[in-house]
Amino acid sequence: MNPFTAIRAESVTAHGELRLIAEIRRWLGKTSPKSPFGIGDDCAVIPPTKRYQLVTTDPVLYGQHFDDTVPPRAVGAKLLKRNLSDVAAMGGRPVAAVVALALAPDTRVGWLREFHRGLAACALRHRVKIVGGDITQAPAGFFGAFLTLHGVSTGPRVVTRGRALPGDRIYVTGALGGSLLGHHYKFTPRLAEGAWLARQKEVCAMMDVSDGLAKDLNALTPDGLAPALIGSAIPIREAARRCARVTKQAPLFHALGDGEDYELLIIVYYRADKDRFERNWKKRFPRVKLSLIGTFARKDNMPTGALRLVDYRGYEHLR
Amino acid sequence: MNPFTAIRAESVTAHGELRLIAEIRRWLGKTSPKSPFGIGDDCAVIPPTKRYQLVTTDPVLYGQHFDDTVPPRAVGAKLLKRNLSDVAAMGGRPVAAVVALALAPDTRVGWLREFHRGLAACALRHRVKIVGGDITQAPAGFFGAFLTLHGVSTGPRVVTRGRALPGDRIYVTGALGGSLLGHHYKFTPRLAEGAWLARQKEVCAMMDVSDGLAKDLNALTPDGLAPALIGSAIPIREAARRCARVTKQAPLFHALGDGEDYELLIIVYYRADKDRFERNWKKRFPRVKLSLIGTFARKDNMPTGALRLVDYRGYEHLR
Repeated sequence: MNPFTAIRAESVTAHGELRLIAEIRRWLGKTSPKSPFGIGDDCAVIPPTKRYQLVTTDPVLYGQHFDDTVPPRAVGAKLLKRNLSDVAAMGGRPVAAVVALALAPDTRVGWLREFHRGLAACALRHRVKIVGGDITQAPAGFFGAFLTLHGVSTGPRVVTRGRALPGDRIYVTGALGGSLLGHHYKFTPRLAEGAWLARQKEVCAMMDVSDGLAKDLNALTPDGLAPALIGSAIPIREAARRCARVTKQAPLFHALGDGEDYELLIIVYYRADKDRFERNWKKRFPRVKLSLIGTFARKDNMPTGALRLVDYRGYEHLR
Repeated sequence: MNPFTAIRAESVTAHGELRLIAEIRRWLGKTSPKSPFGIGDDCAVIPPTKRYQLVTTDPVLYGQHFDDTVPPRAVGAKLLKRNLSDVAAMGGRPVAAVVALALAPDTRVGWLREFHRGLAACALRHRVKIVGGDITQAPAGFFGAFLTLHGVSTGPRVVTRGRALPGDRIYVTGALGGSLLGHHYKFTPRLAEGAWLARQKEVCAMMDVSDGLAKDLNALTPDGLAPALIGSAIPIREAARRCARVTKQAPLFHALGDGEDYELLIIVYYRADKDRFERNWKKRFPRVKLSLIGTFARKDNMPTGALRLVDYRGYEHLR
């Protein structure tokens, strides 16, 4: 099912802007607060906060982040989940979102309804309010939804990408690769895990893996250091193995380069008690795998046998 | 000058994503704070605030909000100013923005540089920080920039679209119509005026005129009431008269329907001292025209000679 229709009566153009906005509020249901705290005024109003605030923005575009095989409800959920994953990576809690839609005149109202129901269900689950937005006409065949998410810190600190030191340990949650086979919209953002990790003093940096480990790790790597990864320790998603059978690449290639994993990449201080940290994790999240996949080393002092990341590429947004 | 190039070496694709992000930070200059308060982490961090917060989102799309005749710097400024106008309409002060870009592979880097310089100059003037964003690939020929702006209240209240009563007076700043001839990107958002108006107890509601007075006034009109406008009191921009000479419509038609005026529409309480309010305005903003254009009346008790708004249409976003 794609977002467009050849039947004019089913299109957003036939529907009209004002009616569409009224319906969007209805589709969003309880996640759409009353004006001025929600849709309906020049700005949405958010009450004051004593916490550090977090802001992130990520879109979904037709042909880029989803295709005809992804159900519209899953597209709506994915739009929010992509942003939730960023808030999780700072150890935050999501609060409110605005959504700017760029719609082709032939966008199908029925598709848009399911999209919003998926968005609303995900927002309800994570206690996010959809407080505002915009609708703009786009060229035929184009669908883009641009969400900006606001969150707050859950404790005394937010975890940044930080500054790793030699010997610091690199962990990753879950498993990696092959997201194209469904994980890219079926994932669960690691919010509970991120908030817990932000409270552990052992954790010195964190980010979410969205463009593939090989590329994203660069953002955590200070000048002069390099990640020394243990190839055999990298958790490979079953779907990555399935992809590998088709592409004739090594499964590890998919695990490092595919992107859209939405797992957490965690740096733990080299002097921290590693066993205690891992024990506490297992107690708190018995069903979520946590893998120690390597350490940071000085470039001129790399351990033998460490994986050469330069052989793997992550997802490039402009090709 | 349009946003695209036929020469691959000049395109964002040839440039590459990481280099482009580094350059965007350079183009934004002082308006781009250091990470984690700016670009470079999973989320941008904004310090706590004791004030009511305001959030709004508005994009610029090629072919929709600008064409080849608008200089790229003006496009960048317009993107921010559209959002500033919404913050002004609540009586707020802008603080920080994130920008999601949807770029065709053939987007010209030089055009994008000028766009960002225009955005940065406008952000600097209004003390707005550009704290984050996203870049996604879009189909050929597409350029969209989606900005979400955060602001805070400047005083004890934010001014909403409120609830007008019979007899309440309707004012508008500046003049209306013909924005297509240049005003749509040359306007100055009414931030100082909005903040001042929020402090006047006479003001009971406010919004910005972006889709044309005829359409936008509906948003301020409660059930059972209608605006009773005085046709001769509506301030007509000189450009609206120029448009009228071409379209053979009345200049008033353009003033009421053209949109993109970015003026403030103000409702003043019917029992307020009108002369005192107007005197104070003149003292504070001697160079900005304020026009009393009508009052709200009961639908079954409209004054004779009042303008029939139903004959005029504002801008429809989905045609």
